[in-house]
Amino acid sequence: MADFTLHEDPLSGNCYKIKLTAALLGVPLAIRQYDIRKGETRTPEFLAEINANGRIPVLQIDGGGDLRFLPESNAACWYLAEGSALIPGDRFDRADMLRWMFFEQYNHEPNIATLRYWLAFVGEAHLSDQQRAQIPAKRVAGEDALALMDEHLAAREWFVGDAVTLADIALYAYTHVAEAGCFRLRDRRNLCAWLDRIAALPAYVAMA
Amino acid sequence: MADFTLHEDPLSGNCYKIKLTAALLGVPLAIRQYDIRKGETRTPEFLAEINANGRIPVLQIDGGGDLRFLPESNAACWYLAEGSALIPGDRFDRADMLRWMFFEQYNHEPNIATLRYWLAFVGEAHLSDQQRAQIPAKRVAGEDALALMDEHLAAREWFVGDAVTLADIALYAYTHVAEAGCFRLRDRRNLCAWLDRIAALPAYVAMA
Repeated sequence: MADFTLHEDPLSGNCYKIKLTAALLGVPLAIRQYDIRKGETRTPEFLAEINANGRIPVLQIDGGGDLRFLPESNAACWYLAEGSALIPGDRFDRADMLRWMFFEQYNHEPNIATLRYWLAFVGEAHLSDQQRAQIPAKRVAGEDALALMDEHLAAREWFVGDAVTLADIALYAYTHVAEAGCFRLRDRRNLCAWLDRIAALPAYVAMA
Repeated sequence: MADFTLHEDPLSGNCYKIKLTAALLGVPLAIRQYDIRKGETRTPEFLAEINANGRIPVLQIDGGGDLRFLPESNAACWYLAEGSALIPGDRFDRADMLRWMFFEQYNHEPNIATLRYWLAFVGEAHLSDQQRAQIPAKRVAGEDALALMDEHLAAREWFVGDAVTLADIALYAYTHVAEAGCFRLRDRRNLCAWLDRIAALPAYVAMA
């Protein structure tokens, strides 16, 4: 078994996905923290050694002399979970799980995570005009993503099949803190019940 | 073997990914065309039956009485390619392939595909102020994505391992038409050599 180190910022939901996956699998993770607000993932050392894209999370996999780095939160979750029940055994369900993970990175994260970061951590007063101009479109797109999720969960407990998968973990990370970006959760009853279901999983860990 | 129907718009690089994957695999695909500029993927029928997210591509899988719909281009490519050489057999390489596919949907497509669509199909004169305000940031982020790809290809022929995978197909779709969004390709020599390598694959099909 390899040793794993997560290069992360504890504020990041993308990093939290990997910690939650590892916790549910019972896999130990060493942690190396960075502060993205101080540009710590854009240093020449980070770009050369950890991720040329200047982003966290990165999962470091130490296979005994064979050191590798895997960026992109959902790819890191996939790596950790291969062979476990967090990835469905059925071929369609496996692809459908990836479908929700791509939805998360395309329709959900750029809207919900970005507004959370801008409003709760940067602060509205410190946004550029260009950022401020994007808020209305991100607000609409983020609420649309949450509405679609709530509708999908009307007749089901989990996003794919009948058990928790990486699709749930990926979507949970920024959904459960979406109110910090001023998104509405409370009246989306299916979504709230699903959030509670995840938080009740054995071995669940909370975000920092 | 199931019958496959692709719900698509021939202008879309996301749809083209699936057609290229199917062609390389020798899998026949029936085609059902929509015009996204006329809102044909936002009709009540489309939202109810094909994709509640109102987007194409959607891969329709007819398993003999069992009809299923799979949105998200990269998930559809995964479904078609499972068990083939387009998905690496090595665990790290498989996750690393997904890493580039998530990179494509997060860092590449929202910038390069969007500016291509706005500039080449909508037309600069018809953009809203809000769209126009986003052009500079999308320009920088798209050029950054192309630069990162060019650098990654400096010492390798394919994005992952030593053969073509879904990572190459996913990234090829909007890269090879990036000049339509006024992105620079010609002086990125590694990237151009890789584009030629893909176009030379047996069974390659061109975009419509």
